[in-house]
Amino acid sequence: MTIRLFVTGGTFDKEYNEIEGKLYFKETHLQEMIALGRSKVPVALRTLMMVDSLEMTDADRELIVGQCLAADEERILVTHGTDTMEVTARVLGNRVNGKTVVLTGAMVPYKFGSSDGLFNLGSALAFVQTLPHGVYIAMNGKWFRWDNVRKNRATGEFEEIRTIDNGQ
Amino acid sequence: MTIRLFVTGGTFDKEYNEIEGKLYFKETHLQEMIALGRSKVPVALRTLMMVDSLEMTDADRELIVGQCLAADEERILVTHGTDTMEVTARVLGNRVNGKTVVLTGAMVPYKFGSSDGLFNLGSALAFVQTLPHGVYIAMNGKWFRWDNVRKNRATGEFEEIRTIDNGQ
Amino acid sequence: MTIRLFVTGGTFDKEYNEIEGKLYFKETHLQEMIALGRSKVPVALRTLMMVDSLEMTDADRELIVGQCLAADEERILVTHGTDTMEVTARVLGNRVNGKTVVLTGAMVPYKFGSSDGLFNLGSALAFVQTLPHGVYIAMNGKWFRWDNVRKNRATGEFEEIRTIDNGQ
Amino acid sequence: MTIRLFVTGGTFDKEYNEIEGKLYFKETHLQEMIALGRSKVPVALRTLMMVDSLEMTDADRELIVGQCLAADEERILVTHGTDTMEVTARVLGNRVNGKTVVLTGAMVPYKFGSSDGLFNLGSALAFVQTLPHGVYIAMNGKWFRWDNVRKNRATGEFEEIRTIDNGQ
Repeated sequence: MTIRLFVTGGTFDKEYNEIEGKLYFKETHLQEMIALGRSKVPVALRTLMMVDSLEMTDADRELIVGQCLAADEERILVTHGTDTMEVTARVLGNRVNGKTVVLTGAMVPYKFGSSDGLFNLGSALAFVQTLPHGVYIAMNGKWFRWDNVRKNRATGEFEEIRTIDNGQ
Repeated sequence: MTIRLFVTGGTFDKEYNEIEGKLYFKETHLQEMIALGRSKVPVALRTLMMVDSLEMTDADRELIVGQCLAADEERILVTHGTDTMEVTARVLGNRVNGKTVVLTGAMVPYKFGSSDGLFNLGSALAFVQTLPHGVYIAMNGKWFRWDNVRKNRATGEFEEIRTIDNGQ
Repeated sequence: MTIRLFVTGGTFDKEYNEIEGKLYFKETHLQEMIALGRSKVPVALRTLMMVDSLEMTDADRELIVGQCLAADEERILVTHGTDTMEVTARVLGNRVNGKTVVLTGAMVPYKFGSSDGLFNLGSALAFVQTLPHGVYIAMNGKWFRWDNVRKNRATGEFEEIRTIDNGQ
Repeated sequence: MTIRLFVTGGTFDKEYNEIEGKLYFKETHLQEMIALGRSKVPVALRTLMMVDSLEMTDADRELIVGQCLAADEERILVTHGTDTMEVTARVLGNRVNGKTVVLTGAMVPYKFGSSDGLFNLGSALAFVQTLPHGVYIAMNGKWFRWDNVRKNRATGEFEEIRTIDNGQ
């Protein structure tokens, strides 16, 4: 069972430009992270864009939906900036059926020592293999349904909008 | 839903003693790793032992079984050295019912830059939340049933003993 | 022989604010870096400011000069942002006599995996112990006199303005 | 001025073999460390051996002496295990004249997060450029003359055998 992995950018993939003194995108670190995790799960990776999710447009989201719908794989992992991850999850949740789609990201760039990126990738890759069809966000070690999740701007943590009994 | 987390040592928790020039165990890094992953999954951690799994005895395994049987939690994560992880999985698989138990470990100490530990912890924590009752090993991004897994000594990777259709 | 260590901020000490998604200053990492280097050189540390050197004012530089003049120690290390390090070096070079003052910094924040910070600290601490009285910049493993150094904006490297025979 | 850099192994260059679960030598990390430090000091590197200094023989030391004597460069940096660094320093000190030779090493492998290696390399590279002819050990941010240094086995730190006024 091959997992489709779509890369859209986000903090995950930000690097430090030492000439400019700014964070920027160069290439995705996903292959490097998969190798570091010694993951042997078959993965087909495709970079769709490399953007800060605050700058993601409706057209960008339409592209992601189109790619998820067109993918041969039943299980899809999407890396995404955390700031608007819930927005993209809702767009996908309303449009994609019959597949398991998991969005994940990172609060701190992978290249920083304090990054949560490798942990999140490990958990998202596990969730996408085991959760039933549906669209989910995997952050903070948890999984959330697309229609019941938000990022708490004060704490930086993902949480349910309303408490429901979803087996967690 | 609180996850019970039993620590038994293994490469995960090895440190470098700079006076002796040897790898050794001091304290577990699991709390630090959970914090790094920004995990908000409720976890009750208990260190059962701190041993290299090559030195794990039958009595040690009996202790682990006893703790899994006695735990109030339905979902249990066990950190373990990779060398005899499959042995402990078989002992647990034959004795523990009605619970989801996931064993995981690392090929490289967490404190080494090249460690797979954080990735494995992320995936194991996700698998223990989503897999049905049973005893499993989570390594290389995959999950394996206790009665169909071995560590390939040449490659260091975990693999199925025989190919079965387990939905993966 | 105690070395006086003045901290002024710079990339060295930048951290990633995971709520804001921006680089910022919290506290200096110099003590942590000294401990990591197992340095046993007696050091008296004082934080003078925590600023990006692009925002350093004339008044800030006056403060640094005043502190260097007033210090009891004959050997002084100053951490500084790289963008205007040469400017502060010139101000110090024209005003401070009878002491060895070495400025150093980093191209990448210490907390990033790819930082040059620890290397630069090691070299600057060595140069400040061995160079004769004068004001210097220590970057790229080299030392430069205050009146013959500039940062090459294109490469990010420090270089001599004109080639002179300074024994290097 | 090109610095000659002789690599002999030591903790600096130890890696973790994840199949064997043991520390071992593969290749030197010195080039990688020099690149990380953004060092632009001209360096001519040669690996003489890759050994734990506890296993270094008289013949090995003879080889190091011979290479130092034969080198065209006046300034030589030698990486070395810390356990017998003082022994090799004494052999070199009695035989090599008219050159500046600095030995350095690390208490923790470079690849471990807690390594002092990059700091030590930075300081040793600075000392070898600035100290007068002689044979020295650079550790703990300090420099020591070859005939007045020992490793304190209890603390892991280098110290003078007797206190002398060497300008430090």
